Amino acid sequence: MDFLFDFLTRFGSQLQSPTLGFLMGGIVIAALGSQLQIPDAIYKFIVFMLLIKVGLTGGMAIRNASLAEMLLPALFAVVTGILIVFIGRYTFAKLPGIRVVDALATAGLFGAVSGSTMVAGITMLEGQGMEFEAWAGALYPFMDISALVTAIVVASIYTNKKRDKYSSVAGASFSTAGAPSVASASFSTAGASFSTAGGAASTAGGAPSEPEYPTTRQEYLSQKRGASDDRVRIWPIVQESLQGSALSALLLGLALGIVTRPESVYESFYDPLFRGLLSILMLIMGMEAWARLGELRKVAQWYALYAFVAPFLHGFIAFGLGMIAHYVTGFSAGGVALLAVIAASSSDISGPPTLRAGIPSANPSAYIGASTAIGTPVAIALCIPLFVGLAQTLMGG
Amino acid sequence: MDFLFDFLTRFGSQLQSPTLGFLMGGIVIAALGSQLQIPDAIYKFIVFMLLIKVGLTGGMAIRNASLAEMLLPALFAVVTGILIVFIGRYTFAKLPGIRVVDALATAGLFGAVSGSTMVAGITMLEGQGMEFEAWAGALYPFMDISALVTAIVVASIYTNKKRDKYSSVAGASFSTAGAPSVASASFSTAGASFSTAGGAASTAGGAPSEPEYPTTRQEYLSQKRGASDDRVRIWPIVQESLQGSALSALLLGLALGIVTRPESVYESFYDPLFRGLLSILMLIMGMEAWARLGELRKVAQWYALYAFVAPFLHGFIAFGLGMIAHYVTGFSAGGVALLAVIAASSSDISGPPTLRAGIPSANPSAYIGASTAIGTPVAIALCIPLFVGLAQTLMGG
Amino acid sequence: MDFLFDFLTRFGSQLQSPTLGFLMGGIVIAALGSQLQIPDAIYKFIVFMLLIKVGLTGGMAIRNASLAEMLLPALFAVVTGILIVFIGRYTFAKLPGIRVVDALATAGLFGAVSGSTMVAGITMLEGQGMEFEAWAGALYPFMDISALVTAIVVASIYTNKKRDKYSSVAGASFSTAGAPSVASASFSTAGASFSTAGGAASTAGGAPSEPEYPTTRQEYLSQKRGASDDRVRIWPIVQESLQGSALSALLLGLALGIVTRPESVYESFYDPLFRGLLSILMLIMGMEAWARLGELRKVAQWYALYAFVAPFLHGFIAFGLGMIAHYVTGFSAGGVALLAVIAASSSDISGPPTLRAGIPSANPSAYIGASTAIGTPVAIALCIPLFVGLAQTLMGG
Repeated sequence: MDFLFDFLTRFGSQLQSPTLGFLMGGIVIAALGSQLQIPDAIYKFIVFMLLIKVGLTGGMAIRNASLAEMLLPALFAVVTGILIVFIGRYTFAKLPGIRVVDALATAGLFGAVSGSTMVAGITMLEGQGMEFEAWAGALYPFMDISALVTAIVVASIYTNKKRDKYSSVAGASFSTAGAPSVASASFSTAGASFSTAGGAASTAGGAPSEPEYPTTRQEYLSQKRGASDDRVRIWPIVQESLQGSALSALLLGLALGIVTRPESVYESFYDPLFRGLLSILMLIMGMEAWARLGELRKVAQWYALYAFVAPFLHGFIAFGLGMIAHYVTGFSAGGVALLAVIAASSSDISGPPTLRAGIPSANPSAYIGASTAIGTPVAIALCIPLFVGLAQTLMGG
Repeated sequence: MDFLFDFLTRFGSQLQSPTLGFLMGGIVIAALGSQLQIPDAIYKFIVFMLLIKVGLTGGMAIRNASLAEMLLPALFAVVTGILIVFIGRYTFAKLPGIRVVDALATAGLFGAVSGSTMVAGITMLEGQGMEFEAWAGALYPFMDISALVTAIVVASIYTNKKRDKYSSVAGASFSTAGAPSVASASFSTAGASFSTAGGAASTAGGAPSEPEYPTTRQEYLSQKRGASDDRVRIWPIVQESLQGSALSALLLGLALGIVTRPESVYESFYDPLFRGLLSILMLIMGMEAWARLGELRKVAQWYALYAFVAPFLHGFIAFGLGMIAHYVTGFSAGGVALLAVIAASSSDISGPPTLRAGIPSANPSAYIGASTAIGTPVAIALCIPLFVGLAQTLMGG
Repeated sequence: MDFLFDFLTRFGSQLQSPTLGFLMGGIVIAALGSQLQIPDAIYKFIVFMLLIKVGLTGGMAIRNASLAEMLLPALFAVVTGILIVFIGRYTFAKLPGIRVVDALATAGLFGAVSGSTMVAGITMLEGQGMEFEAWAGALYPFMDISALVTAIVVASIYTNKKRDKYSSVAGASFSTAGAPSVASASFSTAGASFSTAGGAASTAGGAPSEPEYPTTRQEYLSQKRGASDDRVRIWPIVQESLQGSALSALLLGLALGIVTRPESVYESFYDPLFRGLLSILMLIMGMEAWARLGELRKVAQWYALYAFVAPFLHGFIAFGLGMIAHYVTGFSAGGVALLAVIAASSSDISGPPTLRAGIPSANPSAYIGASTAIGTPVAIALCIPLFVGLAQTLMGG
C-alpha cells in the first residue's frame, strides 16, 4: 500500500514536472484544435541537441569509467532487445486479425529506444537526486540495434518461408518493383511521409491472403546483398541503424566526449539548454501523439492494448535484469531505473525508417500510431515514475 | 516642459535600447537592400518562445494572485477593444475613399494585440525598474478577442444590410463561390499569402459600387452556422482567435504556469533567452515593416494617417481607464502603462488570418500594411516610452 | 625545433578543442554515411548569430577605441586581399589545364574571408588567453571586399580582351541570354544551387576553346551599367558584397554596437551562446567539406594543391604585414595572428554568390569545392594553431 501511495504521489509530482506538463499540454492544445506549430527544422535541431548532449555526457564519463562495469548492463540491454521481439512474435502475433509482419515490426519498434523518453527519464532521475552511471545513456544503441536486427531477421525468415509456398507469384511481383534510387530517396524524408505511403497499399504481394506494401526497398536490399543469396545479412541493418540521425547524434556525442575535451561548450551551451529544449520536445510529442490517434483507430484494437501493456512488461524485464547487475557488479539503482525506462520506451525517430526498409511488407500506420499515440505517452507519464520509484523502494537509490 | 524633456530623454535612451535598436537596424538594412534573412522557422519559434514565456510568467503569478484584482483591468481591456472598433467605424470609415469593411478590418487589427509590442513594453518596464502585476500579460486575450469579435460582428451586420438591398445579385454571387475545403486550407498559411490573395480582387461582390474580395470563406462560415441563420455567431470567432498560434502559445504558457511547476525550465531556459530572442524578433519586424511599406503606398493615404494616430489615441483611452483602476483597486502604475501599450499595439500574427476569415470582403493589403509598416514601429518606438514615462510622472511608478 | 614541438602540442590541443573536434566529427560521420542533418534554417541562423556577435563585440570596442589604431591594420587587410588575387593570377592561372577565369574566381574566394574560420580563430585566441583588439573582427570587410573586387575586375578585363578577339561570336551569345529577372532570382538561393547550375555548362561561350557558363547575370549587370560602357563598375560589386547576408550581419552588429547600448542582450544572449553555436557550425562545415570532396575530384588536381598551399601562403603574407603594424603602431600579437587567420580563410557564405554573379564564366564547382573541402579545414585545423603559436613565439602575445 505504501508503494502505491508513493507511486501516486510521484505520479502527481511528475504530472507537474515540466517534462510531463508540456507533454500533456501538447495533447490538450492539439485536441482543442490549436494551430500552434513548432517548425520541423526546430524539432530536428532539438532532437540533435538533446542526443548529442546525452552522448557528450556519456563520453566524458566513459573516459573515467572502467569498461568492465559497462559489460553486464550492456549485455542485458542486448538480451532485453531480443526478448522483446520474441515475446511479440509468440503473443501479439498470435492474436486474431494481426498479421505476423505487422506484429514483428511493432515489437521491433517497441524494443527500439526513444531518445526523448530516455532523456525524460534522465531528467527525472536528476530531479529526484538519484545517482546513476553517466555512461548509462550509452546503453541505448545496444538495446535499440539488437531489437531492430532481431525483428527484421525474424520477419525475413518468416516471409521467405511463406514466399517459398507461393514462389511463382512472389517472383513476379518482385520484377515489377520500381527503380531502387527512387526508393532509397524516399527514406530520408522520415515521419510525415509514412502515413501516405502506407495508405497506398500495393496489391502485388507475396502472400495472397494478406495485403502487401510496396517492396521496392526490399528488392533494393536484395540487390545490395546479391540476388542469389537468401539469408538476411545483419550488417546492413546494423549499419542503417547506426547511420540514422538519432543514433548518429548520440554516437557523435559519445565519440567527441571520449576523444576531445568538450567541457567548455558542454557547460556553456549543451547542458544549460537541455531541460528547456526537452520541454519543447515534449510539447511537440504531445501534439504528435494526438495527431496519430486517428491512424491508430484504423487498425485492430489489439494494437492499442499492446501499446499500453508493452511499456510496462518490457520495463519489468529490463528492471529484473538490471537488478541482477545491481547485485553482481554494483550497477546503481538509478542505472537500473534508466535501463527499465529505455526498455519501456518505443522508438519515434530512427526506428520507423529502418523498419520500413527492413520489413517493407508491414503496415507503417499500425506500428507508428501505436508507438507515438500510446506507447510514448504511457512510457513517459506512467513508466518513468513507476520504475524510478521502484528502484528507490527496492534498492534505496 | 519637464515632461517633454523627460520624454525626449526616455525616447533617446529607448532608441539605444536593444529592442528599438534592432527594430531600426532591421528597417535600415532592408532599406539598403541587404539580403540578410532570418529563416521563417526561426521567426515562428522565436514568437512561440516569447509568448509562452509571457504566459508562464503570468500563470505562475496568477497562482499567488487574488483573481479579484484582475477583474477591473480585464473589464477595461474588453471595453478598450470594443471602443477602438466603434471609433474606427464612426471616424476612419467616414473618410472619403475608405470602404467601410476595410476600415472595420483595420480598426479590428489595431484593437487586436501584438505579442511582440507587448513583450517590448514588458522589457522596457523591467529595464526602468518599474513594478507591474506579473499577470498583466494575461490582459492580452481580453482586448484582442473583444476587438476582433466586435469588428467582425459590426462588419457582418453592415454587409448584411447592404446585401439586403442588392439581394438578387448577392445571392447569385454566393452560389458561384469555390469549394470550402480549399478556402479553409489557405488560411493556415498566414502572413505571406495575403498580399497575393488580396491582389486578385474578385468582381462578384454583393455591393456593385465597391470591389469585393473572394467570398468563399464567408460562404464556408455561413454553411457552418446554418445557411438559414442570418445572425453572426460569436463563438466561432472567439474559438478561431483562441486557436491561433499566438494566443495558443500564450494561453498554453498561462495554463502550464498555473497547473504545473515550470520554475526549473523557466529559470534555466525561457527567462534567460527572452531578451535576446526579442532583439532578433525586432530585427525581423523592422525588415518586415520596410517590406510592407510598398503595399501601403497602393492604398489611400488615410491609412498611413490612421496607422500613425491610432496607437496614441488607443493608448490614451486605455491609459485613462487604467488610471481609474489604479485609484479604485490599486492597479500598479506599470500595469497601467502596459495596458496602454497593449492598446497601442496592433496585431501582426494572429489577427490577420482571423480578420481575413471574418471579413472576407476587406482588402488585406490595406490593413496589414498599415499595421506592420507604421502601426507597430510607432507603437514600439514612440508609444512605449510615452506611456511608461506618463505613468512614472503621474503615478510615480 | 622548439617551435615545431610547440606547434605539434598546440595542434594536438587544438584537435581536442570543441571547434576542431566538431569539424573532424562532421567529416567522419559524413564519411561513414550518417543521415544526420542540421536543417538549413538552423545553419543560416547560427551564421547570423555568430557574425552579429562578432560585429557587436567590434562595435562596442570601436566606441572606446581611437580609429587611428585601426588605420594601418585595415590598410594591410586591403593590401593582402589585392595581393592574393594577383598571386593567383600570376601563379595558379599559369598552371597547365587551368582556365584563367576559374583561377581568378578561386583566388578571389581564397582572398575573401570566412566568418566561421575567423570566429574559430577568435575562440582559440580567447582559449589561449591571448589579448587582441576587440575591433580586429572589423578587419573582415576590408580584406573580403578588396579581394572580391580585384578578382572580378581583373577577370572582367581579361574576358573583355579575349572577347574583342572573338567579338562576333560573343556578341551573338549575349543576345540569346535569358531574362534578367530569372537570373537575379536564382542568386538568392545560395550554396546548394551552384553545383547544379555549374553542371549545366552552356556552350554559348565567348571563347570557343573554353567551355563557358551561363552569362545571363553578366548581361544583367551590363544592362545595369549601360550596354555601351565597357569598363567594370566597382561600386556595384562592393555594394553586392556589403548586401550579402554574412557581411550584412557583421556590419549590422558593428553599427548596433557603435550606436546603441546592446550590452544587456550581448551578455545574456549573444556572448554565452557563441561557443556552442560555433561547435554546431563546425559540425555542419565538416559534413559539407566531405560532401564537396566529390566535386573537387572532377576538376584538375591543381585545385587541391592550391587549396592546400594558399591558406599558409596568404596567412604568412598577412602575418608579415601584421608584424610591421605591431612594431609601428603597437598592433597586438593576437591581432597579428587574427589578421593572418583572416587571410588564411576562404569565403564560404557570401563569397560564392558574389563571384558567381561577377565572374559568370567561371566554374563554381571548382572554386567552391576547393574552398569548402580543403581550404577551410586546412585553415581551421592547421593555420589557426600555426599563426597563434607563431605570434606567441615571435611577439610573446
